[in-house]
This record gives sequence, C-alpha cells and structure tokens, in this order.
Amino acid sequence: MKALRYVEIGKPPVVVDIPIPKPGPGQVLLKITAGGVCHSDDYVMGLPEKDYLEQGYPLPLTLGHEGAGIVHEIGEGVDSTLKVGDAVAVYGPWGCGRCHNCSMGKENYCTNAAAEGIRPPGLGSQGSMAEYMIVDDARHLVPLGDLDPVQNVSLTDAGLTPYHAIKNSLPKLGAGTFAVVIGTGGLGHVGIQILKSVSGATVIALDVNDEKLRLATEVGADHVLISDASAAEKIREITGGLGANAVFDFVGANPTIALAQSVAALEADITIVGIGGGNMTLGFGSIAYDAAVRIPYWGSRSELIEVLDLARAGKIHVQTESYSLDDGPKAYEDLASNSIRGRAVIVP
Amino acid sequence: MKALRYVEIGKPPVVVDIPIPKPGPGQVLLKITAGGVCHSDDYVMGLPEKDYLEQGYPLPLTLGHEGAGIVHEIGEGVDSTLKVGDAVAVYGPWGCGRCHNCSMGKENYCTNAAAEGIRPPGLGSQGSMAEYMIVDDARHLVPLGDLDPVQNVSLTDAGLTPYHAIKNSLPKLGAGTFAVVIGTGGLGHVGIQILKSVSGATVIALDVNDEKLRLATEVGADHVLISDASAAEKIREITGGLGANAVFDFVGANPTIALAQSVAALEADITIVGIGGGNMTLGFGSIAYDAAVRIPYWGSRSELIEVLDLARAGKIHVQTESYSLDDGPKAYEDLASNSIRGRAVIVP
Amino acid sequence: MKALRYVEIGKPPVVVDIPIPKPGPGQVLLKITAGGVCHSDDYVMGLPEKDYLEQGYPLPLTLGHEGAGIVHEIGEGVDSTLKVGDAVAVYGPWGCGRCHNCSMGKENYCTNAAAEGIRPPGLGSQGSMAEYMIVDDARHLVPLGDLDPVQNVSLTDAGLTPYHAIKNSLPKLGAGTFAVVIGTGGLGHVGIQILKSVSGATVIALDVNDEKLRLATEVGADHVLISDASAAEKIREITGGLGANAVFDFVGANPTIALAQSVAALEADITIVGIGGGNMTLGFGSIAYDAAVRIPYWGSRSELIEVLDLARAGKIHVQTESYSLDDGPKAYEDLASNSIRGRAVIVP
Amino acid sequence: MKALRYVEIGKPPVVVDIPIPKPGPGQVLLKITAGGVCHSDDYVMGLPEKDYLEQGYPLPLTLGHEGAGIVHEIGEGVDSTLKVGDAVAVYGPWGCGRCHNCSMGKENYCTNAAAEGIRPPGLGSQGSMAEYMIVDDARHLVPLGDLDPVQNVSLTDAGLTPYHAIKNSLPKLGAGTFAVVIGTGGLGHVGIQILKSVSGATVIALDVNDEKLRLATEVGADHVLISDASAAEKIREITGGLGANAVFDFVGANPTIALAQSVAALEADITIVGIGGGNMTLGFGSIAYDAAVRIPYWGSRSELIEVLDLARAGKIHVQTESYSLDDGPKAYEDLASNSIRGRAVIVP
Repeated sequence: MKALRYVEIGKPPVVVDIPIPKPGPGQVLLKITAGGVCHSDDYVMGLPEKDYLEQGYPLPLTLGHEGAGIVHEIGEGVDSTLKVGDAVAVYGPWGCGRCHNCSMGKENYCTNAAAEGIRPPGLGSQGSMAEYMIVDDARHLVPLGDLDPVQNVSLTDAGLTPYHAIKNSLPKLGAGTFAVVIGTGGLGHVGIQILKSVSGATVIALDVNDEKLRLATEVGADHVLISDASAAEKIREITGGLGANAVFDFVGANPTIALAQSVAALEADITIVGIGGGNMTLGFGSIAYDAAVRIPYWGSRSELIEVLDLARAGKIHVQTESYSLDDGPKAYEDLASNSIRGRAVIVP
Repeated sequence: MKALRYVEIGKPPVVVDIPIPKPGPGQVLLKITAGGVCHSDDYVMGLPEKDYLEQGYPLPLTLGHEGAGIVHEIGEGVDSTLKVGDAVAVYGPWGCGRCHNCSMGKENYCTNAAAEGIRPPGLGSQGSMAEYMIVDDARHLVPLGDLDPVQNVSLTDAGLTPYHAIKNSLPKLGAGTFAVVIGTGGLGHVGIQILKSVSGATVIALDVNDEKLRLATEVGADHVLISDASAAEKIREITGGLGANAVFDFVGANPTIALAQSVAALEADITIVGIGGGNMTLGFGSIAYDAAVRIPYWGSRSELIEVLDLARAGKIHVQTESYSLDDGPKAYEDLASNSIRGRAVIVP
Repeated sequence: MKALRYVEIGKPPVVVDIPIPKPGPGQVLLKITAGGVCHSDDYVMGLPEKDYLEQGYPLPLTLGHEGAGIVHEIGEGVDSTLKVGDAVAVYGPWGCGRCHNCSMGKENYCTNAAAEGIRPPGLGSQGSMAEYMIVDDARHLVPLGDLDPVQNVSLTDAGLTPYHAIKNSLPKLGAGTFAVVIGTGGLGHVGIQILKSVSGATVIALDVNDEKLRLATEVGADHVLISDASAAEKIREITGGLGANAVFDFVGANPTIALAQSVAALEADITIVGIGGGNMTLGFGSIAYDAAVRIPYWGSRSELIEVLDLARAGKIHVQTESYSLDDGPKAYEDLASNSIRGRAVIVP
Repeated sequence: MKALRYVEIGKPPVVVDIPIPKPGPGQVLLKITAGGVCHSDDYVMGLPEKDYLEQGYPLPLTLGHEGAGIVHEIGEGVDSTLKVGDAVAVYGPWGCGRCHNCSMGKENYCTNAAAEGIRPPGLGSQGSMAEYMIVDDARHLVPLGDLDPVQNVSLTDAGLTPYHAIKNSLPKLGAGTFAVVIGTGGLGHVGIQILKSVSGATVIALDVNDEKLRLATEVGADHVLISDASAAEKIREITGGLGANAVFDFVGANPTIALAQSVAALEADITIVGIGGGNMTLGFGSIAYDAAVRIPYWGSRSELIEVLDLARAGKIHVQTESYSLDDGPKAYEDLASNSIRGRAVIVP
C-alpha cells in the first residue's frame, strides 16, 4: 500500500510502498478514507535529530493523527459492537485505557502513556496517511455514520481541541455572557461554531485582517475585530465595560496572550490553545480576580463523540482542501507557505 | 390612583380608586408601566374564604406579581445606584434578604419569608396592577433599560420560571442532547426560546393541537409533536432510542407527567413546572436510572437579570395582549375562558 | 476447579467441579482471592423459571459480581499495563466500552449492553465464586495494590454503589449541610464513612434498632435515630427546621421513602438506593421545591478507583464475615436468615 | 467613644475619642465586641500620600475590616429579621447589592463599587476598631449566635478568604486527591482545617521552619514539609508521581509560586492567595495541561455564612491573641515585627 512517511530527518515526507499491515489480537485494520494535515506534523518533522529520537519518535513514521476510515479487518478478541464495514473516525490521543483519567475516557491526560511508550498515530505510532492503518483498540474508533469523512476528519483534532477548551468553560458562558476567540483559522473558525451551538455567549472574533474575519462572520461570530492595539478597548465597549467571560486564544503568541489577559472579566476563563510560543506573566494586579488561565491538550473520547454529534446536526462545518496521497508532500508545502484556506485533507 | 383589586372573596376583581402610597425608608415607589396577568392570580382568587385567610392573603389585595415601572420616588436610606426615572422590572419572590438562600439571591427559596410574613407583590403584598406600587427594597428592582415594559414584563415570571428550570439542567444539555418541552403556551413558548439560546439541545415540543404547535415551530422548536398516545414512541425514534436528556413539563397533569417519566433518558432531568394537579409514582423500574425529578418555584435574582439579558440580545420574545387598567377585570375573564394567545398585560 | 453455581432453578447453589477456563484474546484469567455475597444474588435465584430465562440468565451460573483476584494468565492482545501477578478488583457492571456513557467509564449506564447481551459477572456472565474467573477486558480490572482482598472485595458493589450515589450529591453537601442515611447495614455503613470522608455534611443515620445504630455510631455518624414515627420531627430539629440537604435511602421501602420525602430540604437530593419495593408519590406540594429524586444503579470505573483510594487511605472499612468456597451455600443461607453482620465474603 | 484611627499619613494609628455615630435610614449601629488586625491594614498605612489619596482612602480612617458586634440600634426601614441585641459578624467586601455579582451575594466582585465609591469598612469606610461602628445595610450582618466573637472575628477575612479559594476547587478535591497548602500562618492554618472538613483531599502543608509546621500538624495536615529545594520532589513522591490536584499559595512570592506551578497535576487548580509580590510565567510546557491558575479576592456572603457554620460545628479554630483598644497601636507593632502567633484581635 502507499503511505506518506517521514523517512529521513530534515527531509520532506515521501510516498512509499509498504505492505498492508495485519491486525493482531485486539487490533483493528482501517481502510483509510481521509487523513488530516496539521501544523503539529510540521513541528515534529522540524525537530533536530537528537530531540526527535530522544522524544521517542520512530523512523520511518507514517504521518497523520487525524484519521477516518472503514473497518476492514478486526483482530481476535475485539469487542463485538464493531463490525467490518463500519465508517469510523480515529480518536487520536491514545492512552493506557486503565488509569484514573483513561477510566473516564480522558486518554489525552493518560498518566501511563509516557512511561509505557503509548503514542498517538502519526505522532509516534504509524498514522493515517496511508491506504490502511492499524488502530490499537476498538475503543479508539468513534462511529462516523453518514458523515462525509473528507469533510469531517479534521474534527478529530481541529474540532475536538476547541470543543474540549470550550466545554470546560460552558458554566461561565450562559445568558448575557461574552466569549472572545482570537485567531479564526483552522481551530478558531470551528470554535466559533461550537460556541454558537452550545453556549449562550455573544461571540467576539479577532484576527489580523479583514479576509480572515470574513470567515469568522460567515460561521456566525456576532462581532469581528482586527486584533490591533485598539482591540482591548473595543472589547470593553462591547461587553459594557466588564470584559469577556471566556477568552480562547488559538494563536498563543505574546501579543494575543497579553490581549487575553487584559480583556478577561472577573471569574473569566482564559484558555491558551495555540502553541505560538508566548507566555503570560501572572501576578496580583495583572489579571481580573478569579480569572482562570489554562493550557489544554486535545480532548476526551466522549468529547469526540459530541463533536461528531454537532457535525451530524449540521452545526459545525470545517473548511477543507483535498489532496491525493501522492500529492501529500505538496499538502505540507502548501501548509508551510500558508496557502491553504481551512484544513488540508489527504484522500487516499 | 386606580388599582385592580380583589375586594370580596369569590367575586371578580374590581378597579377602585385609592391614594397613591408613600415610600417609607428603604422603600421605592414605582410608576407602573406594565403588569402581567397570570393563572396564579386566578388560583388565589378561587380559594375558599377560610383558606384565603388562613394562608395570610389580605383583603383588599391589589393584584399583579409581574410588574415593570419607572422609579418615581425613593425612600430614605436606599442604595444610591438606583435613580428616579430608572426603568425597572420587579423581582417578585421577595425574601428576607439575609438567610443563606437569600444571600445568594435565591429569594424564591427564602427560609424566613413564611415566618416573617414576607409575601410577593400581588400574592400577599400589594401588587403591580395599579398606577403606582411600593417595592420593599431596591434589590428587588432589575434595570430594564431600553426593553419595552409591556413586551417584557411577563419575563419576570413567565420567563424567569422556565429559565430557572432550564438553567438547572444546562450541564445535561450539551452537544448531541435532546430536550422535550410539554406545553407550548405562556411559559413553554418562552422555554423553547431559552433552550435554543443557551443550550446545545435539540428541542422537541409537544402540545395538544397543531395550532399550538405552530407557535412552537415559530419560536424555534426542532421537532413538534401532538402529545397523544404515540408521542413517547416518536420521541424514542427522534432520540435514537435513548430518550430525552431533559423534559420540562409545563402542564403538570397526570398524562404529561407519565409521558415525561417514560421518555427520560438515563441521568436525565424531569422538571415539573406546571401546576396541573398530577402526580408521578416513582420507584425502582419505573424510571431510567439516575433520572432526577424536580418541582421548582420561580427563580433567583441573578436569573432574572440573565433573562432580561436574553431579551435584550433579541433571543426571547413573549407573545402578549394588552389591556388597560379599566379593562383589567376583562383580562381575567379572557384568561378564564382561555381566549388569550400568550400572556395578557395590563397597561395603566 | 471448584465453583459455586446456581444449577437448578429454585434450588440452592451448589459447589461443583469444572475445568479452569482459558482466556481468549483480549481476556484475562484471575485466580480469585475473594468473592462477595450480595442480596442481588438471592433476588436472581428467586426468579421464577420463566423470568429467569427471559431475562437472559444462563444455567448453570457461577455466582459472584463482587470479585478480587490475582492476574493468572493474560490473553493475547491485552493492554500491556496489566501484568501476571497483579492484585486486582473486578469492576462489575460491564458495558460495551464504546458508547457515549462507556466512553466516560459509566459502563453501568451502557446503552448497548442489553442489546449486545453483555452481562455483569455473576449476574449473567460467569462470576467470581470459583477458584478462577475470566474477565472480558483488562479495563474491568482495577489495581488493588496492598489492600486486603477479603476485607475490600465488597467495595466493588457495597462501596461503589453508595459512593456513586453520594458523589452525585457532593455539590449539595458542603459546609453547614446535613445528610441523612436510612439503613445502616451493608451499604449504609459504608455510605456513612464515605460521607464523613469526602463531604462537609453532618451525618444523621437511621435504622430500626439500637444494635444497628451502634455500628452507625462506630463508623462516624454524628447523630443516630430510630426510624420511627418521630424521626422526621427529630431531623427537623437537628437541621434547624430546614431539613436535610441529601437523603440516601438504602432500604427503599414505602415508609423509608415517605420519610425521605418529608425531611428533604429545598433543593435537596433524595437518592433511593435500596430495592425495597417502595414508591414515592411525587407532586406539587408533596416535596420541597427543587428537591431532586433519583434511583441510581452501581457506579462508574473511575468511581471504583476512587473508592479503593479511600480504603487505601484508611477512610472506609467494611464489616465482613468469611466463608470458604465449600461453605458458600451456607453463606447464602445465613444471608437469607439475616444472621450476617456486614458483608459475607467467599474465600476460595 | 474610643476609636483606633489612621490620622496622619506615615504615622502609626492612634486611639482617639470621637462621638458615637447615629445610624441613618437603612443603617445599623453595632457595639463592637471584636475587631481583627490584618496585614492589609499595614499595606494601606504604608501607601505614599499620593497613592493613599488617589485610591480614595479617607483621613482619618478608623481601621478594621474584620468586625463582630452586638446590634445596638437599627435605622429606619431596616429589614425586620434583624433585632437589637443580635450577635453578628460583619461581611466586609461591601458592594452595591444590585449588580449581577451582588445579586448572587458575590459583593467581593461588585462591578459598581469602584465607580460608586463603595468601600469595605476599615479599607475606605470607617471600620471596626472602635467601640461602635455603622454598618451600611443589614445584609452585611451574619448571625454569630453563640460563637465567641473574639475567637471567631478573624473568620470574616482569614477564614472567608481561604474558604472561598478552597470552595472553588472542591470539585477537584474528591477521594484520592491531594491538596498542597503553602504557608501555614494566619490564613493557611485555617485553610488546612477547611480542607480537612469539606474535601476528601490528603493535605500536604509547607512552611519555612519546623515551628510553623507544628501548627500545621496540630490543625490536621496529613503531611508537613519544609518548603525548600527538595519540596517539589517530596510532593511528587507523596502523590505517586502525579502532583497535587490543588495548590493554595498563601505566600505568593516568586519561590512559592514557582513551587506551586511545578507540583500541580494535570487539570489541577493553582490559587495564589498571598500577596507576596511574586509572578508566574505561564506558557506551553511550563505547567501541567489544563491546570488552572487563579488569584481570588475575599469571598461571598453565603460563603461567610458557611465558614461560621464550620466554626459552629467545631471544625475550624483560629489561633488568636487579644489586645485592648488602647493597645491597638501595639498590635500593629507586633504584627510588623512578626511576633504574633495566629491573628491579633482588638477587644474594645
């Protein structure tokens, strides 16, 4: 089968031909219908050799931590609710399945994964950018049903990550509240739709130019603002001087973090989702009382089910651009040159 | 001034002329802009003399527990954030202000009110169906701002009551969930709008005929059903066999309560809001595990602020019909004959 | 190996000799160190033949849904965090592992189990009252560590069930609150200890005689009361007239349910855990406003981990009486004659 | 009457003789039974003249934001549940009483107080260190009942502040969890007792020497540690490598904040209560995922009621040292020289 693999450190990924793997006991073989391209892949491929190996990444590595497919073959001893032919999405942050966090499906916060060498597909295990893929356990497969895999595969990360962040803040986003979304790209434009679907908040979206804000408006933002020096003042005005009850920073650079800090209301949530290398300096007097600052990672199994429920109800829609597996290397080039609108998806 | 008062037990209320009251220290005099008519008034006026007096109702009693007005005169010692000329709505379930519940603004659950003889306006204290009204404390006045008082006065009960019921269930009404609203009249049609505004639930509305369901559809219900013998089966189908995550019964008669009990999902909420005289027989095997059954009363001070925020954001809209104060007795006749669409409002 | 099995409908269980089972892929073979005896077993063995078979119980059936053991053999494809020799407790309410509830470890509320024929050990699958037992998936095994299996095996049901009930009510059991425990036997005496360990509530325990209340006092109840006609009045006094913020009825008969209903405070929780055949008649005026009534079933995977954490911290201790496997039939006789103090445990 | 007042900027406070004030409408006159001494008073008296005046502090200023007394005279129009002779504690963070936060009793987060010039007693309004004191509204008086005022007056700040911080974290402090308390002095030693009373957490207390840790052990800490360079490692060991589920930093200096950051578990709470001038640098990789960092201020009205309930139940006990009003200046000297064990209380 064809697979898009990272083979040599520092070089672009290449399409290679490898044998179709065989599912062992407890495993499932998927015929891949879609694999999502993500900045994280670029991050991993950008690691110096020493770091790459020390952090336990294998070579070669089939890319792809966002995956969807059809159940092709089921290993022995797999739970009987899964059937060959089922359309499924892959829950990516694999954990041990047994620790306290995993026992609640929060495998993104598995406390054994590091020690046991359990890695997400495409980020340590072999990923979804191939014609077939091994999934280690049926519990990591969520029914896709009639949802189009190409259209929705990105929800497994670009949907699940903002959903998890927002769900944590829902108790603060009832009637009369305001949510700020900084960065309206891949994750942000999904975040806006989630906020409009499950919260009572008025949504204020910020990005660096009008083109990007157009998408925010299209997907339902109530207010859009250029994230310049006057943004904080404008947010104060919109919120009646009180600030925002939740701020989701999908950029995570120093200026966006500072903005988040300055516009958070009393008892607000500030969630830094983007890995833009920024830091917040947090001390008495520099932030509203009881405003909580958090940096989350991905989401839980039940949350992925809920994200797909939102898509099924027509409430969230991801902007995507498709590439064949052979064009996979080009997808990463386009990603690097920032020429993709929304998310790139590999369709084998 | 004119006032619509219940003067003689068993007789309809009458319009009388009485002196404009004077606000004592700590009190506020409102010039009334709107007073809402409610079935509870009829209930009180229907009490036999013995019960009426034993339950502590005075004679004569100015009706009206839904009220809006303009601050006309402020008694000595009243908190300075209130100004003459402010447009306000009256929070009705007055409490002592100091018990544990009142200290959180849950005056609807004041644990001293009964012993201290503290009564809501129109339901023990003199109410809003007059040209002027005394409010016992500035904390019972919520800013109305630009909201039209006639259009929104009913939110103080017909909005606050469903809002309180729904807010309690919000943690169960996220993505992929279903809420059932039984009875789409005065409270129910507001409940549907609240659910659509602040929850992620798909809303299934039930009532007894197509005419009533039309309003449900207009205000945003996702599914509407005649509440007949097949309703439970249809709700099972819509919910994929799992039942509803919350059921709000705005009727409260035996058949609607039985329906609610039968369609509640595991861990659902069943909230019986309507006082239709029904009962639920609750035991092992007769209800889904961990489904919680509750009977609430009105709502809290902060919840009224939130309801008015929803109205201000254009998210809820009450069907109303206006009557002059002189026509007040007719409003109660029309209410009794069930010929009012939505809520009746007295405009002095 | 020896196994205590229900072989003939209507007859007592017998000890038989059967082959040691072999774990298939994904399964685990335990060498049993302890199996708990429970009234539910009696209930199942008391079913008429027609009901027994219609409800899908097999014959013969090895009893025991409370189990602890040592991992003896691991089937192919089982998650690597489990090792031969591990001391474990068995999580009993097995589910599909993939539905929305199972994805959060709430397998007690699996929405596929009934359709898929997935049954708890001892209550449909072959149980723990044998020298060896097959567990269907490693996720159903919780580390026991140094905890004594005989002492703690009952926590998998008699601990988990009250823990789940109490955990649901924790937000209502902070400083200054009161919890009522009705029935201080098997589950109740553990419930009292859990309440004292994880809540801020003052605990009022009720039972039918002083002997039973002695245990309640020993395990930490702040007040003990005979559950007679004056109990409600005494609870009102203790709670300053306000009633209890949570009532846990471990009996579930009509008189205890009526008592629970009458002493619940505004916004309290009433949880009917005992299957005593009683019913509550619930309607406007017959219960405090917003008091929530619930009937739960067992608990979740993470909750079992937490219960064992409490035992490890020395905070809960179960009264037990041991029987050999050969004396298993006698344990059920003693249970039926109500002559066991605390829980009976079979030790192979 | 005698009053301890800050009269001249930069000079110590002095005892002066001033007229007993007269309660206006809506106000209450207390005969003071106890007033607590706090570091915040020192902070205010340490402000340069420009800052002191700009921040709106009056001269002279009667000190004391912790107060208890007997209701001596009630102004006109005050709510009838208050009686002359009632023993009460003063809720200090006065707000407007009508904004959304105040409507829930969270007057510590009043959004009008700054604009309206509403100030806490002793921190802008005239405080409790006098024979008599005016309280602006009956809602700011919480029944003390039989509680000893001298023993318990500090709970209005030194109890309420840690209680509020801890209550926010209770959902994270169930069975099997760990809470770290840094700084076991005035607030910290109360915090330990609160944690033991209302949470399921194992409490690890840190301070700089064995003497201070002795108090921590006396009041119930499960583990005590010197807060040196090895503390983080020891906390990791105690928590099985997972870190603490909540960290309460009652110091708030750079080293303690860094310690808090390094030992917080996944999804933990870090609450910086102490105003030690420290800062946290917060960014991706420098803190556990979804650990939430917060800086709270004081607490709400209902929380003060709950704190006093804990004291009434014998669950919290404050170390105090008494001074007469005449010795008030000495109390501040002793505070400054750090020679007080626990809290200093002025007894007029």
